[in-house]
Amino acid sequence: MIPLNENLVRNFTYIENLAVLEHDFHKNKIPAEDPFDPEQFKSTADLVNSLLKNHLANTKTRGLKLTDPTILLEKAMKLMGSESSTVAKFDAKKLESILELYMSTGIPVQSTGYMGRQFSSPLPLSGITDFVSSIINQPSSFYEAAQLPNVVEQIVADKFYNLIGWNNHDPAMVTTSGGSLANMTAILAARNNAFPEIWKKGVMGIDKNLLPAIAVSEDVHYSITRAVGILGIGEDQVIKLPTNKKKQICINQVETVLDEAAAKGLKVFCLVASAGSTSIGAIDPINELGDITRKRNIWLHVDGAHGGGFLMSNKLKHKLNGIHKVDSFIIDAHKMLFVPGTCTLLFYKDKQKAKGAFQQKASYVFEKNEDIYTKYDSAEKNFECTKRPMIMNLWVPWAMYGKSVYSNKLEYLYQLTQKAYRTILIQKDFIAHHQPESNIFCFSYIPENLPKILNFDFQLAIRNVLKEEGKFFISKVEIDGNTVLRVVFMNHNIKIEKFEQLLDEIRNIGQKIIKNWTKNN
Amino acid sequence: MIPLNENLVRNFTYIENLAVLEHDFHKNKIPAEDPFDPEQFKSTADLVNSLLKNHLANTKTRGLKLTDPTILLEKAMKLMGSESSTVAKFDAKKLESILELYMSTGIPVQSTGYMGRQFSSPLPLSGITDFVSSIINQPSSFYEAAQLPNVVEQIVADKFYNLIGWNNHDPAMVTTSGGSLANMTAILAARNNAFPEIWKKGVMGIDKNLLPAIAVSEDVHYSITRAVGILGIGEDQVIKLPTNKKKQICINQVETVLDEAAAKGLKVFCLVASAGSTSIGAIDPINELGDITRKRNIWLHVDGAHGGGFLMSNKLKHKLNGIHKVDSFIIDAHKMLFVPGTCTLLFYKDKQKAKGAFQQKASYVFEKNEDIYTKYDSAEKNFECTKRPMIMNLWVPWAMYGKSVYSNKLEYLYQLTQKAYRTILIQKDFIAHHQPESNIFCFSYIPENLPKILNFDFQLAIRNVLKEEGKFFISKVEIDGNTVLRVVFMNHNIKIEKFEQLLDEIRNIGQKIIKNWTKNN
Repeated sequence: MIPLNENLVRNFTYIENLAVLEHDFHKNKIPAEDPFDPEQFKSTADLVNSLLKNHLANTKTRGLKLTDPTILLEKAMKLMGSESSTVAKFDAKKLESILELYMSTGIPVQSTGYMGRQFSSPLPLSGITDFVSSIINQPSSFYEAAQLPNVVEQIVADKFYNLIGWNNHDPAMVTTSGGSLANMTAILAARNNAFPEIWKKGVMGIDKNLLPAIAVSEDVHYSITRAVGILGIGEDQVIKLPTNKKKQICINQVETVLDEAAAKGLKVFCLVASAGSTSIGAIDPINELGDITRKRNIWLHVDGAHGGGFLMSNKLKHKLNGIHKVDSFIIDAHKMLFVPGTCTLLFYKDKQKAKGAFQQKASYVFEKNEDIYTKYDSAEKNFECTKRPMIMNLWVPWAMYGKSVYSNKLEYLYQLTQKAYRTILIQKDFIAHHQPESNIFCFSYIPENLPKILNFDFQLAIRNVLKEEGKFFISKVEIDGNTVLRVVFMNHNIKIEKFEQLLDEIRNIGQKIIKNWTKNN
Repeated sequence: MIPLNENLVRNFTYIENLAVLEHDFHKNKIPAEDPFDPEQFKSTADLVNSLLKNHLANTKTRGLKLTDPTILLEKAMKLMGSESSTVAKFDAKKLESILELYMSTGIPVQSTGYMGRQFSSPLPLSGITDFVSSIINQPSSFYEAAQLPNVVEQIVADKFYNLIGWNNHDPAMVTTSGGSLANMTAILAARNNAFPEIWKKGVMGIDKNLLPAIAVSEDVHYSITRAVGILGIGEDQVIKLPTNKKKQICINQVETVLDEAAAKGLKVFCLVASAGSTSIGAIDPINELGDITRKRNIWLHVDGAHGGGFLMSNKLKHKLNGIHKVDSFIIDAHKMLFVPGTCTLLFYKDKQKAKGAFQQKASYVFEKNEDIYTKYDSAEKNFECTKRPMIMNLWVPWAMYGKSVYSNKLEYLYQLTQKAYRTILIQKDFIAHHQPESNIFCFSYIPENLPKILNFDFQLAIRNVLKEEGKFFISKVEIDGNTVLRVVFMNHNIKIEKFEQLLDEIRNIGQKIIKNWTKNN
């Protein structure tokens, strides 16, 4: 029986400050061209489609044109103009100028000269789906607000659980805004699982003789060590696992390092491995790590942000051998599944543990009684309150074209990378730093006439000139203290001949650098 | 002098497993209709523009049609069809069916029946800009990858710093993926500022006699207490500040509560206030809290996710009186600035402290030497590695229409809410639970013939029937243990007559419920 709260009724019926009601607001007249008018929307959107089509069609080989920020700032401010007190008339020419500036100053990911980073020109249909989400604006942490995205998550989760080999009929997949957030969420679930009191009592509330610690590869992504700092565990409690020449966690040293950590009074509650390291795309020995962590009751998390997408290909999924043994892992669909940033999938083996990351209730958002609808809510499992229905960007192309739209491209990129490796192997003046395990490949230009001692970093110098020339866009990375050249193949329009052109370009640049240096020394 | 690492060169030139190179991959033939073809993109995008235009034009009054998830799941699976081993031919009809299902099952935010949540039908141009970002795909944590978005952040930051009254020529604004992430980032910066050792040593490394604690309103958003759990401080260390009848932090009790906390050995390093609480849109006394926290050397963070946008309006910014005194605060542009989810702005008063949230370096992403380009990088200040260039969605409409496109709508919504309040005040059978401070308003239907004792929650019952009938979409919230009806006005097409229709609808439903109950009791 719920009695009527008379007190509540009376307390709130008085008028506090009626004057404000009479406040003389302007009539907010809608201008002749209403920014919210559907016709205006359509004509603007059609214009933008044309601009984007031309942008996508321009695949000619080029790199990035880097502009001085102060010059760009000036341009942008000029385009913006001065503030007016009324809503300005829509000016299609101005919009075109703004968008042209936006498109022309970006990394040309659709160009065959783009071999530089882990993001790509997305599947157009994925971008179009994202547009629908931008307009209909359905935050997807709750079933009520985004019905289709929430059931689609279930469908996609089922598909992936099958690919993983988890024959779990109640999958616990979480979509979240980026790999850093997904990694943190998983480590948080691991932390809370190992230290059930920590959510309420804090890290200082736990046994001093058993400090929480986490074991990671020497070559782990910065988001992992960052998460340790955030979660209150402290970077000092990060145990580094040595890597082998392939930059994989050196499996026969793992137990020793874990034993040493235990001897120091550390409780390693989580081990983080990579499936596709950022630097060279190395894949840690998941299968063997799975055995070690299971034996020692350590949560195994795999950061598959880059390489996790290999699950989609029957020919490449063996690279993730043992993935069914992990406790959690992530895939950035905005990397190797070619959807716009961001769309990260976090998988838990155990559904109950998925709920462990965030241990709280909030009456006005979480319904107390699970019903057929709220059963699909994800707000208790994901960090975000307002979350984009990002799963749609992955699912719609999947539904329309089939899984092959992903696997074909992945396989092509993998094959291309292997060809690039083979190409380097037969050059006398280049060296390969590893046999690529994914679509990332590091190499150096070491011509015979390279002076043994230089007062600058030769590979870095090459990369900088290459970047400035603006024909190719590649990246660089440090391996064992040496800068090396790095390509990431994300564009399926690149053929091996294009890579050979890149090598010629590097030769030209390198020889010019040597000539100049020799002249001056 | 950097000597050439001969060792590195030799180690890596051997061929590990050439066989894999010969792996017989299928030729990944591009199908007749290439999913990446720009023409295919254009025709699909044009089709989608038409669908979206019709969607936006359909503003007729209606609520949400909630579908049984199992039925929706079946529909989606049927649309998806079975997996094929080749890339399927593009089927425009199928895409139309998928998108129709997506649009028709969402909350109709563009309808005049939508008065339920804090997200809106976004400014169409903002959604269109977002589409450009989806296609050109420029993650914006680094200047190199997203040049225009990074200088635009500077422009927008300058504008806001002026509005705040911070005459800081080096603003420290961070854009991030949602209010929860922004709140956590600010609290993290506050934690690291108060406990400089914590990042490395962890929470257990700090003085046991000075436990970190945080003071928040009784009515604070769940993301704040969640952040405390995440950061390793522990929910037990959350100090609740009592609220007054208006659900604002009761200013004359703050010092007492803080004294009590100090007496218990807690070091309150951060006080979090709201500018627009989620439940009723209450705005805490920022100005007075600014004085108290400055005196006590406590970091003042204001969660302005909802109401922070008032800064954009000369007529409404007084509601944030004292905002220049805070150390950090956030605005969700995807709430009251009408851009698609998500786009959150986090402001720090002190630029140096902005860098305190994430205290680490990662060679392969962070350049060691700041140059004219990397000076604009934000990766050290924001949580994300891959981050959407969300600022464009706020800036492009601003540049095109002027600030008025935001302020006009805000002022209209505010005025409408005040009118709704006045409307309720003159009804004998309704009560207002507060004078609205923003565009959120809570009220109850209490007719004279309402039985004094009911065995169910009357307001909740009304809301549920209303939801099921699908004409209006409103929400409910608990105030002092009582469920009350809640409207959030986010749609400027709603006129006060529409609210009066809602009241009539509530009367009809309420009277039916009473009649039924009376008949059966």
